[in-house]
Amino acid sequence: MSNDLTIWTLDWVPEGPRGFVRDLRLRWACEEAGLAYTVRTVPFEGRETNHLSRQPFGQVPYLDDGELKMFESGAGLLHLARKSENLMPRDPAGEAETLQWIIAALNSVEMVTVPWWFLGLSGVKDNGLDGWVQSRLDHLETVLSEREWLAADRFTAADLLTADILRIPKVRSYGDRPATERYVARMTDRPSFRKAHFDQLAHFAAADAQRSVAG
Amino acid sequence: MSNDLTIWTLDWVPEGPRGFVRDLRLRWACEEAGLAYTVRTVPFEGRETNHLSRQPFGQVPYLDDGELKMFESGAGLLHLARKSENLMPRDPAGEAETLQWIIAALNSVEMVTVPWWFLGLSGVKDNGLDGWVQSRLDHLETVLSEREWLAADRFTAADLLTADILRIPKVRSYGDRPATERYVARMTDRPSFRKAHFDQLAHFAAADAQRSVAG
Repeated sequence: MSNDLTIWTLDWVPEGPRGFVRDLRLRWACEEAGLAYTVRTVPFEGRETNHLSRQPFGQVPYLDDGELKMFESGAGLLHLARKSENLMPRDPAGEAETLQWIIAALNSVEMVTVPWWFLGLSGVKDNGLDGWVQSRLDHLETVLSEREWLAADRFTAADLLTADILRIPKVRSYGDRPATERYVARMTDRPSFRKAHFDQLAHFAAADAQRSVAG
Repeated sequence: MSNDLTIWTLDWVPEGPRGFVRDLRLRWACEEAGLAYTVRTVPFEGRETNHLSRQPFGQVPYLDDGELKMFESGAGLLHLARKSENLMPRDPAGEAETLQWIIAALNSVEMVTVPWWFLGLSGVKDNGLDGWVQSRLDHLETVLSEREWLAADRFTAADLLTADILRIPKVRSYGDRPATERYVARMTDRPSFRKAHFDQLAHFAAADAQRSVAG
């Protein structure tokens, strides 16, 4: 039961978000951990309401681990991190460092970058979040110029999550931060990232083919 | 050692944020858990750079637990939750539910509400996040109209965190959501919240007195 993992995502998305849908975080984590998993889907059509009984904000992904069910990619990631030392060290200091950087990624970095690019997409001119994003990315650049990994002197789920946030094209190309760029390049060159990324693209491409047959 | 907890916050803040500085989340959690703690401070002046060696984004709070040190209030909260069943059930399902709602609070609710009120403070007119905030709060209203607690049919750290996010005056007064209002009222009426809130106000008031003597 403990390795009966199912990652839920959408059956199809448009070109834009492909490669960036957050099921990738869980796929990547499972690949790093060597945990087998199945991918299942909910329909893209009606996605804002069709799975509210499982995800109260209408988002993907969510994760089943046997009888356990949980939404929020960050929660799934922490859950997987507790299952595998590949994702989080087992000593208290290493675990605390990994935890703090996972939460920093979710609540200090992404809390600024996501609304920032969302406003950009919506065509809002005077974004109002530019300075805040710059400041957060500059602070991260300082950290990443001093070390290879965020936590515990090794790869952890904190790197996985942070790199996934920083690789968003608009974020990655916002200003010149060489240490951050090297970090993102290093993390996205990992075989586990590349497999997860390839698989997500293949998943949505297969849905295209099926739509075309159905059409 | 395991109960040698220190919560770090600022020595003083202006009136506006008093009662809302995030050390309150950790104070409240310790009160709920019955864990003794000490409060220590870093200076408000120069706060953006004066403790970067401990908090890479220049924020408070951070938490020491004996030799363990961690930043991010969400990480501190999860750390405390693992120390006390008062904050998080010990059964896997209850723990997973608590974890998912803690992460939802940080990465789905606060990721929208904080940039939204930040933009409001900055005087940006066409905020661009109004619809997104409404949608998230409406989804939460649906959930809270169906049950008393977010996770595991009991008070957990997920309620603590979510109520702390929803009680921000601008968020609390944005639209008419009776279940959310009852929830916030219920959570902030808990003796542990009231003590933590009182103590934070007293902490900053004492700093006023000290400033006035020094001045």
